[in-house]
Amino acid sequence: MSLVVVGSVAYDCVETPHGRADRMLGGACTYIALSASYFTGVRIVAVVGDDFDPADEQFLRDRGIDLEGLERAPGKTFFWSGVYSPDMNDRTTLKTDLNVFAGFNPKLPPGYRSQPYLLLGNIQPALQRSVREQMNGVRLVGGDTMNYWITRFRDELLETLKGWDFLLINDSEARLLSGEHNLKKAACKILEMGPSTIVIKRGEYGAILFRRDSYFIVPGYLLDDVFDPTGAGDCFAGGFVGYLAQCGFDLKDEHLDPRILHRAVIYGSVMGSYCCERFGVERFRTLTRAEVDGRFEEFRRFTEF
Amino acid sequence: MSLVVVGSVAYDCVETPHGRADRMLGGACTYIALSASYFTGVRIVAVVGDDFDPADEQFLRDRGIDLEGLERAPGKTFFWSGVYSPDMNDRTTLKTDLNVFAGFNPKLPPGYRSQPYLLLGNIQPALQRSVREQMNGVRLVGGDTMNYWITRFRDELLETLKGWDFLLINDSEARLLSGEHNLKKAACKILEMGPSTIVIKRGEYGAILFRRDSYFIVPGYLLDDVFDPTGAGDCFAGGFVGYLAQCGFDLKDEHLDPRILHRAVIYGSVMGSYCCERFGVERFRTLTRAEVDGRFEEFRRFTEF
Repeated sequence: MSLVVVGSVAYDCVETPHGRADRMLGGACTYIALSASYFTGVRIVAVVGDDFDPADEQFLRDRGIDLEGLERAPGKTFFWSGVYSPDMNDRTTLKTDLNVFAGFNPKLPPGYRSQPYLLLGNIQPALQRSVREQMNGVRLVGGDTMNYWITRFRDELLETLKGWDFLLINDSEARLLSGEHNLKKAACKILEMGPSTIVIKRGEYGAILFRRDSYFIVPGYLLDDVFDPTGAGDCFAGGFVGYLAQCGFDLKDEHLDPRILHRAVIYGSVMGSYCCERFGVERFRTLTRAEVDGRFEEFRRFTEF
Repeated sequence: MSLVVVGSVAYDCVETPHGRADRMLGGACTYIALSASYFTGVRIVAVVGDDFDPADEQFLRDRGIDLEGLERAPGKTFFWSGVYSPDMNDRTTLKTDLNVFAGFNPKLPPGYRSQPYLLLGNIQPALQRSVREQMNGVRLVGGDTMNYWITRFRDELLETLKGWDFLLINDSEARLLSGEHNLKKAACKILEMGPSTIVIKRGEYGAILFRRDSYFIVPGYLLDDVFDPTGAGDCFAGGFVGYLAQCGFDLKDEHLDPRILHRAVIYGSVMGSYCCERFGVERFRTLTRAEVDGRFEEFRRFTEF
């Protein structure tokens, strides 16, 4: 029972007030897969160029990630570079070289198609839909999107969302997608678009899970230092869906225990917080499942009353 | 066993995207007292002018608030007017007429001096200290401050803080007072200044309580509509200390149950959220203790995992 993850595998150049990393492994698919690998088997679908470092490939393999769907194409791997503001609440993109990602047309290996869980990272909505259609009998499908698709590919995105069980989105994207400033009203409108579950990520302020009949709010974890927020939202997604996969969760189950969804939000928050502790994916070289569960219990302690 | 509250009683003119109120009862002392009155006996120390409306006085009396310490001075009551930004996260002060408040020199009636709980609203730190010194055997004392006192009366404020058990402050004020951007680090520094408990208010994002050995975070309540955020921070303070007074809480108690402090933060959040539902103090004309407890339970439901 694995989770299939689709999205970008990239090299990033990132500058934060804590320093700079010139060419580090990144991309939504990478972060999601690494994060989810603490909870469930993960199989990725992505494309890299012939410059992709065998050491990076080995790192993903060492986390037990299935790379059969990682396509190698002639040319360079997707490259992104950005710089964060002093308080790290804003970032400016300096460069986006799509490279081999420009021609990405995800094809699922046969072994992937019958897996029960699917997480669609932030790519063109039509591509997300094509991946969804390649899956047979998927139990839980959802994903991420961004401002660019919301404003320029709105109709395609709305068509895609109809087939999703859950949507992970940040607060400004939720406002843009719904046209509502109030997050509760925004969530109500998005729930009409298809997904029965919406998680609105609020950066350092945590996240809110909305369903038609209930909601759950978790505050953000207080880090001593945020080294690099790159990938934190994707790690949240990986922890969220990874934990649901670990539980064999089915949103269509009439008797579902909503606390499993709440705990999935906590695990998402835990993974997002760990991601920020080092540059890029570095924290996942040493992070253990025991540390993950330890921080989950810490969330319990600082929210209990 | 009552709570003594010191601060401003004022008339406010407020404009929000939902409308405008030209001359409504306001002031930190008013909001704190109304909010705390749901939990404990309240006695206020403040000054009003000869224009103070008997109907407003009656409203406070109807909530059981002791007005023996409400001084009447010749002249006009403190007047403030402000306008909120469209998303209500910012406000611009249009006018501040101190009027009789300019000569405010709080004198506690003898019956107030032996009360166990004291909340010092946002006034000149030296005045806060003088009130503290008029009390005998106070069990719990704390208060609020603001940017103006932090930057222009820093030494006086630091002297005043030495005598406090708790400080309620918003996130930008905590950063200004401590010189630290990270809230955990900011709280650590402020804990060195005297108070053993600090509550950092984060507006719509909730609040964090810090003590030397632990912290507690609560997210903000999701309102369908925020009509007017004026006074929400003061209502938080009133609910927080009002609940502690109701419990007969003593921070110096070696065997204190930290969950009482956590629940006080929840009650503070509940009162702040109700405050925003109508203009000014209007919500407190109808709000019942049962509604307060109902929302407390709602906090439990949407934060439990």
